[in-house]
Parts: sequence; structure tokens; C-alpha cells
Amino acid sequence: MKIGLLTAGGDCPGLNAVIRGVVLKGDRIYDHEFVGIKDGFRGLVEDIVSPLPRQRVRGLSKVGGTILGTSRVSPITNGGTERVKEVMARHEIDALVTIGGEGTLTVARMFADDGIPVVGVPKTIDNDLSATDRTFGFDTAVSIATESIDRLRTTGEAHGRCMVVEVMGRNVGWIALHAGIASGAHAILIPEVPVSREQVCEWAQQAQDRGRAPVVVVAEGFTFAGDGTQVGSDRTDEFGRKLLGGIGEQITRLVEERTGIETRNTTLGHLQRGGVPSSYDRVLATRFGTAAVDAVSAKKWGTMVALQGIDIVNVNLRDATSALKTVPRDQWDEAAILFG
Amino acid sequence: MKIGLLTAGGDCPGLNAVIRGVVLKGDRIYDHEFVGIKDGFRGLVEDIVSPLPRQRVRGLSKVGGTILGTSRVSPITNGGTERVKEVMARHEIDALVTIGGEGTLTVARMFADDGIPVVGVPKTIDNDLSATDRTFGFDTAVSIATESIDRLRTTGEAHGRCMVVEVMGRNVGWIALHAGIASGAHAILIPEVPVSREQVCEWAQQAQDRGRAPVVVVAEGFTFAGDGTQVGSDRTDEFGRKLLGGIGEQITRLVEERTGIETRNTTLGHLQRGGVPSSYDRVLATRFGTAAVDAVSAKKWGTMVALQGIDIVNVNLRDATSALKTVPRDQWDEAAILFG
Amino acid sequence: MKIGLLTAGGDCPGLNAVIRGVVLKGDRIYDHEFVGIKDGFRGLVEDIVSPLPRQRVRGLSKVGGTILGTSRVSPITNGGTERVKEVMARHEIDALVTIGGEGTLTVARMFADDGIPVVGVPKTIDNDLSATDRTFGFDTAVSIATESIDRLRTTGEAHGRCMVVEVMGRNVGWIALHAGIASGAHAILIPEVPVSREQVCEWAQQAQDRGRAPVVVVAEGFTFAGDGTQVGSDRTDEFGRKLLGGIGEQITRLVEERTGIETRNTTLGHLQRGGVPSSYDRVLATRFGTAAVDAVSAKKWGTMVALQGIDIVNVNLRDATSALKTVPRDQWDEAAILFG
Amino acid sequence: MKIGLLTAGGDCPGLNAVIRGVVLKGDRIYDHEFVGIKDGFRGLVEDIVSPLPRQRVRGLSKVGGTILGTSRVSPITNGGTERVKEVMARHEIDALVTIGGEGTLTVARMFADDGIPVVGVPKTIDNDLSATDRTFGFDTAVSIATESIDRLRTTGEAHGRCMVVEVMGRNVGWIALHAGIASGAHAILIPEVPVSREQVCEWAQQAQDRGRAPVVVVAEGFTFAGDGTQVGSDRTDEFGRKLLGGIGEQITRLVEERTGIETRNTTLGHLQRGGVPSSYDRVLATRFGTAAVDAVSAKKWGTMVALQGIDIVNVNLRDATSALKTVPRDQWDEAAILFG
Repeated sequence: MKIGLLTAGGDCPGLNAVIRGVVLKGDRIYDHEFVGIKDGFRGLVEDIVSPLPRQRVRGLSKVGGTILGTSRVSPITNGGTERVKEVMARHEIDALVTIGGEGTLTVARMFADDGIPVVGVPKTIDNDLSATDRTFGFDTAVSIATESIDRLRTTGEAHGRCMVVEVMGRNVGWIALHAGIASGAHAILIPEVPVSREQVCEWAQQAQDRGRAPVVVVAEGFTFAGDGTQVGSDRTDEFGRKLLGGIGEQITRLVEERTGIETRNTTLGHLQRGGVPSSYDRVLATRFGTAAVDAVSAKKWGTMVALQGIDIVNVNLRDATSALKTVPRDQWDEAAILFG
Repeated sequence: MKIGLLTAGGDCPGLNAVIRGVVLKGDRIYDHEFVGIKDGFRGLVEDIVSPLPRQRVRGLSKVGGTILGTSRVSPITNGGTERVKEVMARHEIDALVTIGGEGTLTVARMFADDGIPVVGVPKTIDNDLSATDRTFGFDTAVSIATESIDRLRTTGEAHGRCMVVEVMGRNVGWIALHAGIASGAHAILIPEVPVSREQVCEWAQQAQDRGRAPVVVVAEGFTFAGDGTQVGSDRTDEFGRKLLGGIGEQITRLVEERTGIETRNTTLGHLQRGGVPSSYDRVLATRFGTAAVDAVSAKKWGTMVALQGIDIVNVNLRDATSALKTVPRDQWDEAAILFG
Repeated sequence: MKIGLLTAGGDCPGLNAVIRGVVLKGDRIYDHEFVGIKDGFRGLVEDIVSPLPRQRVRGLSKVGGTILGTSRVSPITNGGTERVKEVMARHEIDALVTIGGEGTLTVARMFADDGIPVVGVPKTIDNDLSATDRTFGFDTAVSIATESIDRLRTTGEAHGRCMVVEVMGRNVGWIALHAGIASGAHAILIPEVPVSREQVCEWAQQAQDRGRAPVVVVAEGFTFAGDGTQVGSDRTDEFGRKLLGGIGEQITRLVEERTGIETRNTTLGHLQRGGVPSSYDRVLATRFGTAAVDAVSAKKWGTMVALQGIDIVNVNLRDATSALKTVPRDQWDEAAILFG
Repeated sequence: MKIGLLTAGGDCPGLNAVIRGVVLKGDRIYDHEFVGIKDGFRGLVEDIVSPLPRQRVRGLSKVGGTILGTSRVSPITNGGTERVKEVMARHEIDALVTIGGEGTLTVARMFADDGIPVVGVPKTIDNDLSATDRTFGFDTAVSIATESIDRLRTTGEAHGRCMVVEVMGRNVGWIALHAGIASGAHAILIPEVPVSREQVCEWAQQAQDRGRAPVVVVAEGFTFAGDGTQVGSDRTDEFGRKLLGGIGEQITRLVEERTGIETRNTTLGHLQRGGVPSSYDRVLATRFGTAAVDAVSAKKWGTMVALQGIDIVNVNLRDATSALKTVPRDQWDEAAILFG
């Protein structure tokens, strides 16, 4: 079989480990041939396809980024499945492995519905896919955020300051929750649980009163209770970039004004998605990759690989993309016991 | 309630995060009082008990080791449950939280059978408990081993050498398996799967032939196929220390003699169990801690906390200690596809 | 002798290692007694002084922040040397060790001129003191910046983006220069060397043309050639905080607008000054600490410790604070050869 | 000019950064052509030479190991300078840049004496060259050792054990000294300063008595006072490998037997010389590389580059290789104040 691989959406530590897993097992066990499709769906509609032999994936398990490149170009508005079938036919590609997040997997599902042989690999640094216990990239992001908060805490304590840290998470608060628990934050603010301005300031004040330098971890998509619309994260300028003055900055001003505690914001941004993947993510990504090539070989079209407990399983793409995995209220409540 | 905490067995990153979780939630939600028992069961039989107020657990989520100390002293051969009840009565301790591995949990089960109110928290850096998907400490150990192998690989490549790395794992090969996958090892040797000398040398030779510096990861409890007894790890001197010349050293000599490839051994040893816990382990340990104090408050004696999927659950200590979680053959086979 | 210690100015990794070095050697060799002065000069004018016995400095060489706290309060405008002498007399403090940057050392010089027995320890994360080859904290800051740029580079390459990284350095570009060299940046912009907008865009374009994801490292105090005033870093709001839209953000917009390359900014900010000090900084800080207590014991008032080659020496505070150590033009030129 | 590059002796973090510096500046500024000589002097006598264009050094500043390979083959006993001149003539190589330690630089000096145009770059992870304040690789080795000791300390404290750590240093104790200071060791044992068995045990006992877990850092070349010959490190088996039972292991047994404190040894070995170089080493190595190509272009044959203060200078190879830079007694005495 000749298989095309692509990575789409935002960068995520572990993408290269998936690619390596797919190609190495496909080469050794199934004798498949592989081609790499450049920059996600862009390569598929603009026909940028090149051979992906075994040698190209050598040593990749620990390399951040993706050797295939990635983009947010959608094939739907750029020729649709007809164009995709055309490019696949030209290169005699028998099947696709698409590695990406919710949007990518939804496209993969449409492809499968239109008769394109495709297997998905879930990728979301936010850990927001309900069909899998975990996704690769998430552990690395949490590790980086935790290490950063550890650093900021010491400097907060030296100066007697409140430190606010804005982490990724437009729709779900998993990174904030885990990094906040790991670093012993005094408040963790996530999109799933609106909290009032008073409550945030109260937590900061309580920590301060106990002689601590308050640490507030906030997901970029958090909004205050009562605020109808999302304030920070969705305002973008003409280049699609997030406008300055995100939620971290807002909370910083709020806490400083209302409590009088000197407060500083740090927005981790792109730091969370780059660099060497953690060992956890390398293992999960490698297992996803080898399982994906098994699924292709077994012609399980329209499915994706997923982690359930300690096993890698196959799930239907339709089920996989129907619901976002948000932080359950009781997990946040459990963490909130330690706030303030 | 007045609750006694102890940590027993080998050191493990995350112990302090469990202690912190138990005490903080117990103090805030249930108004329990806590005492720390020194050096595991030793403190229980020798009556070394001291108050463990909230302030003592402050900032502990990221601190390696255990503030309570640990030892391998067994209460069974030192006065048994009668002595334990006596010490508990003297300090008016209503219940115990025992944090430890298989041996510790077996003792906890015996305590429960004898009417001592006890809840267990599983701790095994080897990840060998069948009742929980993961244990804290394991992720940190795998991270350290992976980072070490990454380093050793570059030096192997500079010199054209084969690098052998001996990691922890007397009875199970989880650390070797995960660190080996994460670092792209050319052979992973674990206690569960005996492999012949010829096969090990062949994998090293194949990697060498493809222009790579071969990397062999071996768990300390691995034995060659056909060797009746365990060769390396169980020989100890009069102080109970592992004798020099463990399995890593043996494989080093073997590969060098049979293939002629210059080969070097590194035994990671105690490096794998010390230091700052990974964010994964801090989160799991904190969740275990808060769940354990819930179990105590609900008087679920004779149970321990466990991870299943993404949930923390309670399982019976009897079930938890009955079987070792070994690496399933198919998970090793899956990894072995990439060997050589 | 009874010696008072204080740390003033911005937090800096290694402060605790200095304190530990002073106290341990002072206790063991000279039998001095120590007191800690809270929050820099604030503690000296507000009389917040407490004993600093040997036990309090235990294990501190690797701990970030400062156990004494720090602030930017000036004693000059808060009672002056008279008030300082008064507080010292009340506590029977015979001499001061003041750990701080250019401002702090200038105050120490004034103290010495007014007859207060004082020895300085230079602290500047920016490495901008001319009397010492290096200061502690700088190596840690460069390490953090370098690791961050390594991470950002992989994500830049995955997306085909230009990554701009704003690092510390209001007046000097040492952190930018070293982190830029270490990470192989395509442009390093520092306050000492104004560069035109065209040149910056050209470097980014050249890197892009060679198939690289351009990386631009900019010190917060950089200004474009021809711009009369400093644009980014010195605008502050009513709370003294840096206004959003620093130089990193400006360059991001500039490059994106003029070259069409998608560009993203990351401002490292407080991340660079917190956390565990590097081994280099721990060694230097410890050596500074033990040398400072020698200087006190030898009554070398009005001096500070400094690194020259591999030796720790004593220099006059007057000489030490007269000139800022800026990046020499030839060192930047040397680095600039690799730009673009 | 056509310039041949080689790296010889043991692996050392920063070798690739030197190569990159030489080639990038040589290509951009001087229009030199480069060839890489495989595996140190072996490639020079066995004629294994290949082009080294600019593209091959891309991204190398952070990559451990050496893309040229290395070995300990000596050209002196393998054809001598005649053979070297012959190979150089065949490939029309005008000059050599040899990157290596004391042995390599001595060979380079002999080459220069025999009329071969050569410039040296000092490389020694042990930091034992007297003509330069520092060499690259040393900072990385100290960082790894320090981080390892930090980890081992927590596990020592959990178990109440003494932890012995054997680090590199056959002839000089720089790594032990710096890692020991950085990690707050209770004893630092180096080849330059023999110490009695009684003294070592006394330091361990003192630390234990003060409630600490004793940490002993020992360089592999340390010998006890009074022992005529070097005990541990120079015994090798028939493959030239260090025999088991080095000095770390000996001290472990000694302390345990004499003090009764449970004691464990960890030998860091090859871990110290592999992996990603620290930012300090990347900067120094890059500066060495660009300075070396300047020296070649200026035909400063028989010299090597060196760090003096904050400047890179050229020194005569004859002066550079005449004396080993050992740890001065007063620097060890200074550290020893904090022992026990």
C-alpha cells in the first residue's frame, strides 16, 4: 500500500514521534510505502507531496515540531474531496493518515464518508477530545507550564508579589488544572467554571494573608462569572493575532487594584507547544503511530486511535468528534479545596 | 479524627505531594488532625510520632523524598499488630494512611484484617501494581532514564560505540519499556521476556550496520533465555548491597566480545528515584492524597486509592495486592518491531 | 562581630547561595553573628531585623529567590544614613553586607563615605557591572532564555513562522547576545547597537529564503536606528508596570507587515529571573559569599567582591559603580556575521 | 583556502558548535572551503575525508557529540607527519583545525614544528588546560553532575543514607569541586588533595550528626593520603575499560563499615559527557570556532584559541600544553570550610 501522511493544526510535541512510528512499523511489518504531504491539507490541495522513506524518520522520537510542516488550511473550502481524490490518484496514494485535532478529525470523517480511505490520529495539546483518555503534547505543555510557575513563584516570594500565569486553553482548562495542581496554585481559573472577580481577589488575599506569594493560573479562555461574552482571548487584530491585553493581564490589573498586592502577569504562549516532547508524550505518540498503521493495514477506514486505560484502541471518527472533553466540575471542585 | 501517616519502602518522587494532599484536604474539609510516623513502620513500632500540622506540608508538591522518612522495617516481625494498636492508642490515633508498595499494602491489608482502621496509597516506582493504571514516581523515573539515554546516545554516536543502560526493574520491565520506546532504543530487555545472547548481539550488530550507535536498555532483573537463575541483580554482599557486575555490565562484555563493537555500560541506579517529581506525578500524587483522606472520612477501611482511566477510585486491598502487573507480551512485541 | 545582611533590587538566582556562603563561613571560621534585614533597605529604615543563624541557611545553595526578601525602597529618601546608623546601633550591628545591583552598590558607597562599615556583593542579572567579569544570575537567565528559544524555534519551523523573543536588558544586551549566540538566532538586537527597520526585515527574509524559520532575539531596551527616543520599554502605566506593546511586539508587527512572513512574539519577562540557579551561578554566588565575609573580617569597608579571570578579588566600590559594562561593538559584530 | 577539521579524544558537549562556528564564519567572511576528517586523527592517516559545506553545520550549536566522529588514534604511531602531509596534499588541504585535549594539542604542536599549518581549539571536559580560563564541555558536565547530586540528596534524606557520587577527573578535580560546591556537598575529594580515610568518615559522621544525609563527591582519580598508588581509576581490563570497584565504591564501603551509616554509590560516568550543551558551553564553543578561523586566515600557525577574562585570545601551542591546570590548594581549602 502507498500511504500519505499529513499533520494539521497547531504544532504539538510528539508529531514527529507519530510519523516515525507509522513509517517504521509500516516499512518493517507491512512493507508499505509512504509519502509526506506538506503543511497539512495545504499540501493535499496544492499537490506538495514527497517520498517519506525510513531514513527520513530516523531519530525523530525526541524531536519537537513536525518534519511535514503544518497549517490551518482547510480542504473543504479549497476544492473539497474531489480535489483530494485527484491528488491522491495522481500520486497513487491508497490511504491517508491524518494527524490533527478536532477540526482535522472532522475533515477526516467527511473524507471517510466520501469514500476516501483514511485513519486519524488525535492531536490536541489541550487534551479536549472525549474519545481518548489523553493526547500527546498535553503532558509536555503541562510540564513546561509547571516548571515556569515554579520559577515565577520564587520570584513572587522574593518580592512579595502575586504572580498571574496565563496558559493555553481557549475552550477547556485541562492545562491550567494540571499545571495549577502540580505547582500548588492558589487559584486555577478555567473556561468551564466562571468565577467572580471578588472570589479571585479573595483567594489572592487569603494566600497573601497566610504569608505566601499568591499564584493564579488562568486558561486563556476563562471569563468572569456574569460576563456575557468572552473578554480576552477571542479579540484578534487584522492578522489574526491575539490582541494584547488577554485575560492574564486583566486579572493582574484587577488583583492589583482591588487588593493592593503588587501583581505581575506572564503569558506563556507558544513556549508551551514547542521543543523536545516529554517521555510520556513520546511513548504515547509512538504507540499511536504504530497502532494507526495497523488500522490502515486492517482497512479500518473512518476510525482513529485512542488511549483507554493502558490500551490503545480504535474508535469511530464520528463518535470521536462529537463532544469536547471539558474538565468535569468535580475535578475542579477537588482542586479548589486547596485554593486561597 | 486523628490520623497517622507513614511512608514505607523505597523512596519515590511524589511521596511529599501525597502527604500534602492528605493533610491539606483533611484540615480544610474534615477538620482532621494529623500526626507523622517516622521512617515507615519503624516509627510505628518504635513509637516515633510527631504532630503534622498544615504548615509543615506547605510547598511540598514539588519536593522529592519524604519529610516523614522511610525504611524497610516490617511491623510483622517487630511486635505485630498488637504493638501497632498499642502505639496508636497511646497517641489516640484513630486511623492510618500507609503509603507504600506491594509489601506495605500487604501489611496494611493484614492490619485491616486485624481491625486496624487503615487506608492505603499505592507507591511503586516500578508501576507493577495491577489495581491501578499508573502509580506516581514511575513517570519521573522514566523521564530521568529517557533524558539519560538521550545523552548517552550522542556520546555513543561520537565514538561509534554501543551504549548499554541498566535501569530499575527487578521483577517488571515497565521503566525499561517506556524509557526504551521514548529514546528509540535498539533493544529493550525486560524480566518478563527472556531473550537469547545471540539475539541481543544481533540487534546491536544490525543497528551498527545501519550506521547507528546501538543503544540497549536493560531492566536490572532481566535474564537471558535458557539461564535458569537470575544472574545479576540478586547477588548481594553482606551489607545487602547489589554486587558489582550487574546485568548491564554482563551485556556490555557480551556485546563487545561477540561483535567487536566498543561497548560501555551505565547503571542509573538511585538517580531514577530522587529529585523533583514530574508534573504528571505531582498531579497523580495530589489526587491520591485527597482521595485517601476522603476514604478515611468515609471509613472505607482496607481499601486503597487507584487510577482507572482518568478517575481516582477505591479498590479493596485484597484485590490490589494479589497480582503483580507485568508488561503484557504484546506490548513488548509491539516495541520489538523497532529493535535492531 | 555582628553582621547585617540584606538583598536589594530585582530578584536574581543565586541570592540565597550568597547568603548561605556568608553565614556558613562567618559562623565556622570567624565566629561572627548574623542578622537578616527584611526586604532590602526597607528593613533597614523600617527596622525589620531578625536573627540569621546557621540553621536558616541550610540547603539554600539551590533555592531561587531570597529568604530575606527584596524591594526597591531607597534609604536615601527614607531617613538617610542617620536613620541607618540608628537602626544598626539599636541592634548592635557592626557591619553590613549589601547584595545588590548598581543602585544598591552606589548606596553602599555612600554609606561607606558616611562611615558605615559595609561590604558589597554585586548582583545583576544583566551582567552590566564593569568591575567583575561575570555576576551570578546571568548564567541562569541566559540558560532559561536559550532553552525557551530552542522550544520556540521548533514551533516556528513547524508553522513556517518567524519567532521574535523579547528578553531582559534595558540598558545592555548581554542576555540577548549570549542567548542569541547559543540558540543560533538570525538577528540579535541590543540597546548598544541601533539597527534599522530595513536591516531587521532583511535578516528575517534571508533566513526564510534559506528555508529556515527566522528567529529574532531582542533585548527590551533596543531601539531602531534613527529613532530618537526609546520606544518600548520605558513607557509604564500608573502602577509602574511596563506598558503592553514592548519592542518585541513592535518588531513582530514590523516583520509581518513588511515581509509577509507570519510572525509571533514571546516576551519571557519574569521567567528569566526565577527558579533554581544554574550550577555556574551557585558556584559563583557561594564564592562571592565566602569572599565577602573575608572582606568584612579584614575590615575592607567600601569594597565589593568581584570575579577576575578565575579569581575572586576585592575592588573599591567607587570604581565598581562608575561605568556600565556594555556589550563591546566587536563582540556584537562577531555574532552578526552569522545573522540572516 | 581549503581547511580540514577534525575532533579528537573523548566526546565533549560543544564540539559541534565549534565546527559550526569555524565553517559559518569561514564561508561567509573568508570564502574558505572546508573538509571534515573522520574520527580524529584516524581519518587523517586512513584518508577518510569528505566535503563539509555550510549546510551540514546548520542547527548544530545545540547538538551534542560531533558530526565528524572522534577516536583516540594517534597519528604519531601511524605514519607520522609524513603520512599526514601526504593525505593533506592529496586533498589539497591548506591548513588544519584540530579540536582536542592535551594529547591532541601536543600532536598539533608537533605538526606545526614539522611545517604543517595548524591551529588548535582546546577541548577538555576536565577544564585542565592552563592557557585558558575555561574550556567548553566543562560547564555542561558540572551541570549534569550537580543536577544528579541534587536528586541523590533527596533520596539520601528520605532513607537517612550517605550518598557517594563519583564524577569524572582522573588528574584534576575541577568537576568534583564545582559540582560539590554547587550542590552543597559535605566532602569533596580530588586528586590534588589526598585526604585520610579517617577524615572522610569524620565529615560523613559530622553531617549525619547534624541531621543531614551526608553527600560525598569524589573525582575518579582521588587517592587517600598515604596510599602510594592510585587505587581505583587506573585499573583496566583487557578491553581498556575501567575495572569495577572504582574509588566511589571503595569510599562507600569504607564509610559504611566505619560509621555504620547506610551508604550508596553512584558513578555518573558517560552521562557527564553527552547530550545538549549548556548555553555557556554553546557560546564559548561558538566563539572559539569563529576565533579559530580568524587565526587560520591570519596564518597564526602553531597557536590555539583561549579564553582570558571575557576575551578570546591566541596563545602559542607550546605554552598551552606545558602544564596541567590543577585545582589550587586555596580554592579547595575555601570549599573545605563548608565540609562536614
